[in-house]
Amino acid sequence: MKILITGGAGFVGPNLIKKFLNKRHTVFCIDNYSRGSEANIKSFFNNNNFKFLKCDVSDYDNLEKVLNPIQKSHGIDEVWHLAANSDIPSGVKYMRVDYKDTFMTTYNIMKWMKHNNVENIYFSSSSAIYGDHGDKSIREETGPLLPHSNYGAMKLASEALISSSSQSFLKTAIIFRFPNVVGIPATHGVIFDFFNKLKIDSENLNVLGNGTQKKSYLHVEELIDAMLFVREILGNKGLNVFNIGPDMDDGVEVKTIAEEVVKSTSYNCKIIYGKGNKGWVGDIPKFNYSIEKIKNLGWKPKLNSHQTILKAIKQIKDQIL
Amino acid sequence: MKILITGGAGFVGPNLIKKFLNKRHTVFCIDNYSRGSEANIKSFFNNNNFKFLKCDVSDYDNLEKVLNPIQKSHGIDEVWHLAANSDIPSGVKYMRVDYKDTFMTTYNIMKWMKHNNVENIYFSSSSAIYGDHGDKSIREETGPLLPHSNYGAMKLASEALISSSSQSFLKTAIIFRFPNVVGIPATHGVIFDFFNKLKIDSENLNVLGNGTQKKSYLHVEELIDAMLFVREILGNKGLNVFNIGPDMDDGVEVKTIAEEVVKSTSYNCKIIYGKGNKGWVGDIPKFNYSIEKIKNLGWKPKLNSHQTILKAIKQIKDQIL
Repeated sequence: MKILITGGAGFVGPNLIKKFLNKRHTVFCIDNYSRGSEANIKSFFNNNNFKFLKCDVSDYDNLEKVLNPIQKSHGIDEVWHLAANSDIPSGVKYMRVDYKDTFMTTYNIMKWMKHNNVENIYFSSSSAIYGDHGDKSIREETGPLLPHSNYGAMKLASEALISSSSQSFLKTAIIFRFPNVVGIPATHGVIFDFFNKLKIDSENLNVLGNGTQKKSYLHVEELIDAMLFVREILGNKGLNVFNIGPDMDDGVEVKTIAEEVVKSTSYNCKIIYGKGNKGWVGDIPKFNYSIEKIKNLGWKPKLNSHQTILKAIKQIKDQIL
Repeated sequence: MKILITGGAGFVGPNLIKKFLNKRHTVFCIDNYSRGSEANIKSFFNNNNFKFLKCDVSDYDNLEKVLNPIQKSHGIDEVWHLAANSDIPSGVKYMRVDYKDTFMTTYNIMKWMKHNNVENIYFSSSSAIYGDHGDKSIREETGPLLPHSNYGAMKLASEALISSSSQSFLKTAIIFRFPNVVGIPATHGVIFDFFNKLKIDSENLNVLGNGTQKKSYLHVEELIDAMLFVREILGNKGLNVFNIGPDMDDGVEVKTIAEEVVKSTSYNCKIIYGKGNKGWVGDIPKFNYSIEKIKNLGWKPKLNSHQTILKAIKQIKDQIL
């Protein structure tokens, strides 16, 4: 298979590329290195089945220039569209960030696929599309969909476009709604932020919000496992949406993460909390994510949120400190 | 009140403008005359409280150039954002149509409102955001939201952006999900199409699909009535979403509409049906729209779908033939 991965030099991409290369697929990875970086993918550079091309997916002319020759010489079988903004607060501050990096990347990929008869897409959407449903269990058909962040809004916009495209030219359109995912190579997220703060000041750790925000976490290795499981089981079967996340657990408070991060170091560090139970505008303090649908298909994660956090803290500490 | 109406020279706009001018509000109407036209609004030109400005809302520079002087001299209190594509099949054929006219108009309006501290928006969304739910009653919280047309997709994208904006800078964000709306000045829709076809060929009327597509219809006068009712009742109260439509009725088949249109004329006309129960890619053949939420607030329509169709046929016949 000839597989195109957009935004492949970020956090999820390298984990996916590794699996595809192990299965002897040919992988074309494009990324503009804005949030991703060469360091994340350089281990693949000596693999003949891997090709990286620098490309800004939000720029259609650039996309055509990079992809058309590949399409002509190889023919892309499927696209894994991961390119997106990952800095949610910055997207809330500047509307343009998620418009350009989260939505226009999708619009351009869909347009390019339509023009080039590429009919299969796997898309990394997000639980952020749901907005705040309080204690209610969030299933794939839960509504209304009123996202709080521009990131969630532009992921929902992307889903909508993929949905309508699946009515006209797509054969496969699998939408995965990611939970909070942790692991390496970390490029963003709460653990990543904490270690980077500690690197600058090992005596004081400032936490956004009062630390009571409780979220569920999935390890990136399990996320990849879930997506490849769905890909294998479903084959080319139209439009499908899946929540991916840890199996119903209580989640982990930011407070616990801060404490575990500090505990993992030898620092004598004071944790200082902010106010309110939202880390930023658009942050959802409570989240009850249902993965019944993918469980019914036969997949479930091995680690709970707390185990996941501990594993990721160990890995990210090694990456950063 | 100083009210800005985008896309105000189309079908819904003139009906809304009339009401606002009667209430002695000041109305600024912008439109690029792509689907709207001067004919639809020229009756307001001698009203001192009405000002029309030609403007392409999908072009941000143009929008700033037109709106900034108004904002400086008058200050806009609220925006009624109606500008959008209305030709759904053309939007399915060319992705750019709804991207530009349905989504970018919203993106630009939100961006302009954010930069200019305008905090109240009323938005004309669409039942097309829901996609196909078969016989299931469609309420505001129904999901999943998997639209079939690019029009529905870009309306959903617009809703998503308004939703996230309501978390950061909007005070009022009322989203109205329009049903099939008929009345005058007609600019599109099945009755409009039929009369225009008859104008060219009064002996044969070609119908898209086999005529069994059954839909509910609301008259534009009732739509306006519903929106102004909600505006009055709710005041400035954050984000709210309302389905607007006829009260649970069986809807009207396209076949019936074709027959009534022909019956309203003196033509001896043969009706010729196409195949399938979809008029076009993205058309939803069956639709069970719930208006319980707005009914609980105290509003309900006076006409059922069939009465609405008969009233609109009479009016649109006078407009076109």
